[in-house]
Amino acid sequence: MFSEFKHHILKTFPDVFQKKLLLAVSGGVDSMVLLHLFKQLHVKVYVAHCNFQLRGEESDGDEKQVKEVAEFYDFPFFTVRFDTLQYANEKGLNTQLAARELRYNWFYELCEAHYLDTIVIAHHANDRLETFLINLSRGTGIEGLSGIPEVNNKVIRPLLPFSRETILTYAKEQSIKWRDDSSNASDKYLRNNIRHHIVPLLEELHPNFLNNFIKTQTFLTGTKEILETQIAEVKARLFVKEEEDVFKISIAFLQDLTPLSAYLYELFKGYGFTAWKDLENLLKGETGKKIVSDSHELSKHQNNLLLRPLSYESEVVYSFNKLPSIINEPLNLTIEMVNEMQERGESIIYVDREKLNLPLIVRKRENGDYFYPFGMRGKKKVSKFYKDEKYSVIDKDTQWLLCSGTDIIWIIGKRADQRFSVTNITTSILKIQLQS
Amino acid sequence: MFSEFKHHILKTFPDVFQKKLLLAVSGGVDSMVLLHLFKQLHVKVYVAHCNFQLRGEESDGDEKQVKEVAEFYDFPFFTVRFDTLQYANEKGLNTQLAARELRYNWFYELCEAHYLDTIVIAHHANDRLETFLINLSRGTGIEGLSGIPEVNNKVIRPLLPFSRETILTYAKEQSIKWRDDSSNASDKYLRNNIRHHIVPLLEELHPNFLNNFIKTQTFLTGTKEILETQIAEVKARLFVKEEEDVFKISIAFLQDLTPLSAYLYELFKGYGFTAWKDLENLLKGETGKKIVSDSHELSKHQNNLLLRPLSYESEVVYSFNKLPSIINEPLNLTIEMVNEMQERGESIIYVDREKLNLPLIVRKRENGDYFYPFGMRGKKKVSKFYKDEKYSVIDKDTQWLLCSGTDIIWIIGKRADQRFSVTNITTSILKIQLQS
Repeated sequence: MFSEFKHHILKTFPDVFQKKLLLAVSGGVDSMVLLHLFKQLHVKVYVAHCNFQLRGEESDGDEKQVKEVAEFYDFPFFTVRFDTLQYANEKGLNTQLAARELRYNWFYELCEAHYLDTIVIAHHANDRLETFLINLSRGTGIEGLSGIPEVNNKVIRPLLPFSRETILTYAKEQSIKWRDDSSNASDKYLRNNIRHHIVPLLEELHPNFLNNFIKTQTFLTGTKEILETQIAEVKARLFVKEEEDVFKISIAFLQDLTPLSAYLYELFKGYGFTAWKDLENLLKGETGKKIVSDSHELSKHQNNLLLRPLSYESEVVYSFNKLPSIINEPLNLTIEMVNEMQERGESIIYVDREKLNLPLIVRKRENGDYFYPFGMRGKKKVSKFYKDEKYSVIDKDTQWLLCSGTDIIWIIGKRADQRFSVTNITTSILKIQLQS
Repeated sequence: MFSEFKHHILKTFPDVFQKKLLLAVSGGVDSMVLLHLFKQLHVKVYVAHCNFQLRGEESDGDEKQVKEVAEFYDFPFFTVRFDTLQYANEKGLNTQLAARELRYNWFYELCEAHYLDTIVIAHHANDRLETFLINLSRGTGIEGLSGIPEVNNKVIRPLLPFSRETILTYAKEQSIKWRDDSSNASDKYLRNNIRHHIVPLLEELHPNFLNNFIKTQTFLTGTKEILETQIAEVKARLFVKEEEDVFKISIAFLQDLTPLSAYLYELFKGYGFTAWKDLENLLKGETGKKIVSDSHELSKHQNNLLLRPLSYESEVVYSFNKLPSIINEPLNLTIEMVNEMQERGESIIYVDREKLNLPLIVRKRENGDYFYPFGMRGKKKVSKFYKDEKYSVIDKDTQWLLCSGTDIIWIIGKRADQRFSVTNITTSILKIQLQS
């Protein structure tokens, strides 16, 4: 069985001996097997373990065991403790998503700090099947069904073709110790529900269910790549830049595409237009006719379509030239100096007073708004944030933003900006609270 | 609820009043609802009911009820009785596939005989989900996941977007009578297993599971159409006909395709080449290098690939100029005159003596072989038959054919040819039996 793993790893990642690898090890069977495989292959890895502190002593026990094995193997070992519940609470995420964000941010930081090339994750075939079913249940397209890539930027996944069962068998065969996450035994999470109840029934449908599924996903990935390349080519040919963010598209060229409806959908879905019937009608409509999505306007001008972003300008801006202690309009905020950060929650942020510039402004979204979401790397368009948070048009139109001059401090009640956050050199802490 | 159905039917099939429709009615809730809907819409339909005689009196009861309702509605009514088990046995099919073949053959015959345009089938959203899961369990590509089309040649499916639950609710609301197929309650068939055990769990994953699934399939259908058009265009451009069935393909042109591996797979899978790694290696190989699939050879000649069908010629042909009573080589057949067809099975066929021409020949497959499979309409390539029956290369190389001159009488032990079958004007019946 080792030779199967070895064959796959060396064939798929032939440069594994030249790279500096960071291996994420939870202590569960998947990552402990991967750790063992690298040791057997004489590939040095840097071991990274996150203690999410979600299961008390059990979490600490996981940490201890991974550390012992890493040291026994003579591999460098990194560990970190996260206050996952607090982070989840602050960011309005569920625990699993919060853990995911914390984990990946830390892995990337480790790579930068220690000049590592590659993050190795022990995802396997059953993980892929579970993700497939979750995406299917929510509604998706080929992108949601075609699966996690084996290589994706810095991340590689050497166990993707192997089933949980194969990994388990190898672990027993090799007397590898691992620790079961007690939350796996419950149906607490969607994924566990799928794992314990749905997958076993699916596997009864066909003796080769999982292998057949992996083949299916490989085919779908190929199809997805052809589709994406094809759509990108058509876009490059048909979307002629008129000015910044505004494109002119020849209707005659569009009408040459077969099948038209599928192309219209693929070309314009990224701009929020998903009703291809409306798009087809627009092609046949009169000059001046237009349709509008959450973010864009598409209008007919003689023989062309014009695609432009919707323009948002704040009709009402509340501006405060002195730092107020209470804001009553357009919503209720209290602003006070505090000695330390205590209460937490979505309706509270703490900011470093000295980083604020006046005037303090309360307004709605404007074109081109961006911010630096707390806990994430880099900046993000506010429109993208709204989209990811699945805001409706009404949500977007009613969401207030607190700004320091032109910079966003807080998407009020939703997400703070990293730039104003309290650090260990902060001397005056401002608590801003949304009162209901 | 009627207005929802009406809206969908009139929008999707606006010519429904101009067409002559054959509606397949089993007596179950789906088809009884569709029958009721057409009556309410004042659309005349021809009702066709198959009695598969699989459930004794229950089957006869279904037939009686459908007939009564059709007559009450003043719709023309056709019915037929099939000996489904015998047909399944003769053709080596499972009962469901046999019933399907019998049903569709009869529907097409009715259309021809009565000048009907369109066959209407009461498939609904849950049928689509079940098919999706069956295909997924067997391994498939986008074609197996993107679902049954609403319009496919002569067949339309007006209930495809509606769930079984919606249809059931409408039936109760309108006091429509229907009959439950008692075999539905058991797990006898794969589809029932999925329906009763897997789908309810999937529906627990998301409150909108079925609707999301329908959306997903709609997106996949669009993607599939773009893919197919794109592959057909690339093929038309790159595959240059050298001679009958032989194509020359420029390697430089192939290498311009992005992503290459996915294109190689899509372009050559129809010729039996599914390992795109081998294809990529061939592009880089030396002149004269070749790879071979079950049916084709792909070889490198300077800057081109040459694609040609494998040529099969029978090395050994056993020829009988007089009708033998026993054949001992290359396998054991007995041939005798009988008064009637009695014993049945895969190892026996009955043919009309007068339709046979001498010499009688036993040989293996040759290029271009075709036959008229018993129970099917029209002719079929033997290579296609082998493929559909999932023959391995060895199966193909060892399968013997019994021929009358150049015409195939029997794919021995597998399928008889329609042309030689016994009819009600046959005067001398020949029983040919494969002895083990």
